Amino acid sequence: MREVKLSLFGFGNVGRAAARVLLSKEAFFREKYLLKFRVVSISDTSGTVWLPEGIDLREALMVKENFGKLSSWTNDYEVYNFTPEEAVREVDADIVVDVTNDKNAYKWHLAALRDGKGIVTSNKPPLAFHYSDLIGEAEKRDLPYLFEATVMAGTPIITLLREGILADSIEGMEAVLNATTTFILSQMEMGQDFERALKTAQRLGIAERDPSGDVLGIDAGYKATILHCLAFHPITFDDITVKGIAEVTLGEVRRARERGRTIRLVATVEKGKVVVEPREVPLGSPLTVESHENIAVIRTDLLGELVIRGAGAGLKETASGVVSDIVKASLSLGGA
Amino acid sequence: MREVKLSLFGFGNVGRAAARVLLSKEAFFREKYLLKFRVVSISDTSGTVWLPEGIDLREALMVKENFGKLSSWTNDYEVYNFTPEEAVREVDADIVVDVTNDKNAYKWHLAALRDGKGIVTSNKPPLAFHYSDLIGEAEKRDLPYLFEATVMAGTPIITLLREGILADSIEGMEAVLNATTTFILSQMEMGQDFERALKTAQRLGIAERDPSGDVLGIDAGYKATILHCLAFHPITFDDITVKGIAEVTLGEVRRARERGRTIRLVATVEKGKVVVEPREVPLGSPLTVESHENIAVIRTDLLGELVIRGAGAGLKETASGVVSDIVKASLSLGGA
Repeated sequence: MREVKLSLFGFGNVGRAAARVLLSKEAFFREKYLLKFRVVSISDTSGTVWLPEGIDLREALMVKENFGKLSSWTNDYEVYNFTPEEAVREVDADIVVDVTNDKNAYKWHLAALRDGKGIVTSNKPPLAFHYSDLIGEAEKRDLPYLFEATVMAGTPIITLLREGILADSIEGMEAVLNATTTFILSQMEMGQDFERALKTAQRLGIAERDPSGDVLGIDAGYKATILHCLAFHPITFDDITVKGIAEVTLGEVRRARERGRTIRLVATVEKGKVVVEPREVPLGSPLTVESHENIAVIRTDLLGELVIRGAGAGLKETASGVVSDIVKASLSLGGA
Repeated sequence: MREVKLSLFGFGNVGRAAARVLLSKEAFFREKYLLKFRVVSISDTSGTVWLPEGIDLREALMVKENFGKLSSWTNDYEVYNFTPEEAVREVDADIVVDVTNDKNAYKWHLAALRDGKGIVTSNKPPLAFHYSDLIGEAEKRDLPYLFEATVMAGTPIITLLREGILADSIEGMEAVLNATTTFILSQMEMGQDFERALKTAQRLGIAERDPSGDVLGIDAGYKATILHCLAFHPITFDDITVKGIAEVTLGEVRRARERGRTIRLVATVEKGKVVVEPREVPLGSPLTVESHENIAVIRTDLLGELVIRGAGAGLKETASGVVSDIVKASLSLGGA
């Protein structure tokens, strides 16, 4: 049995879903991998709860869900007012888990790596803007830097590209990487215009209150950038072309339908060229997934066409990727 | 740059396809992985060619293709009359690559592991009958035992299950794992009876001269057994239920079609229970793949449904899995 110390950054929906998986599957991880996780710190925007002996996750979830912030939790635990950089430096942990949306997180990812800590992240901008620096630093120090949940939630496309098909040269990929836009486009097919479809998505919790990240194609663009870095060579989000779905009209959707086609926000990833844009795809094409699913169609020299399809969003689906990486990072760290 | 010594067992279609990938992508492996492969021995049923300085693969391919057997190659190379056990013992190699159909290969796999050699195999019976012994021995000695090409050719379902979705508990899988039976069933849908469809498959080189392994469901059964070992716990081929397609009649195929269904040889893999049998599947179902493709639909607690689809047969497609494993084994062996 090996105990692994985790430092959790972010305690929103995804962070709590990951905590719930760690809690509810404790016996599974112990039996299957001989691993025991000790969460030594949890940070949200209100502060950092830090206890080297390990935080009671059940209580942490209760406090966060009842009071909305960790800083309310003052009876048993010290709450520190750290910046993420300070928390990374102060807290002794084996693995830093980033489930925040912090756009500048690459700074404290680098700090953590330099401090000898492995990284597991579901946060996309660090990789979409600093892939080369982050992976370079991790490789130099022989530390895990894992990011399964950044693309297609827990559907293991990152594992597939990083650890599988190692003899193949990838020729290109086409992928539907954002579930919210698929939902909106599906609603438009049923006759709602963009504004109404977006409101429906927001009402159902599928789109966020500020939907721009999804609707403008930024989220899919981050993901496509990461796929390019893995399949070809490092680039940044600034190097790619992104057009969202905000200008797709009901007329366009209807005309596509009349031709036996449908519109999806498709990411095309080729060597040195990434384009994310609404595109007409034939109705029988694998790219016409349902809204909760993502898909990637990968073309390679030896295999021809390879398809992976699965959940592209959702809390436990994203936690699946985060916790799978926590297990993988733990197994890779320092012997048995 | 690291040089890795390979000992190749089997120089039939798959072995030669793997040799061709090693040859034609030499620069790719050197640049991408800093790996250089030196094939120190090649064995076919006629003998073992052994040269510690490295065999010229181009020449080896020429000899085999022109003379049908390696033992004809006597001008530059010594040809030894080793049993596989002797070859494993005599030849100094880092990785033993088994692309034979030797049903008793588990014996020399174990011998190789005990001798400190890693294994890459596309040969199914060793795993379908001795999974527990082989994986146990490899883990005990911290050696790679890799078998991507045993299931779905190079389509990376083994990587996906062994190295991805580590936090998920698998609930079950349904898979179409044999391309030959899919081809025959598709021909039957077009009106050929089983015997004629089989002859067509044989004429096109899709079915072997002795087609029993495919037609009786044994090949799919081996693969389903291996998937069960990975997803749940080790079992053997003797523990599963297999029914082939030899008794499927034209009438059954026609009646299925009338109900909007089609017949496929489906493997159902659940905890402690594996069944391979012809089953009616709805026409829109993911299981209605085309004949060159295989598919697996995996259900898990966190992700829900996860689908991987890709080549299930073919020479370069199988070589993709074999050589990917050679790269992976090489990267895992002894530092950088």
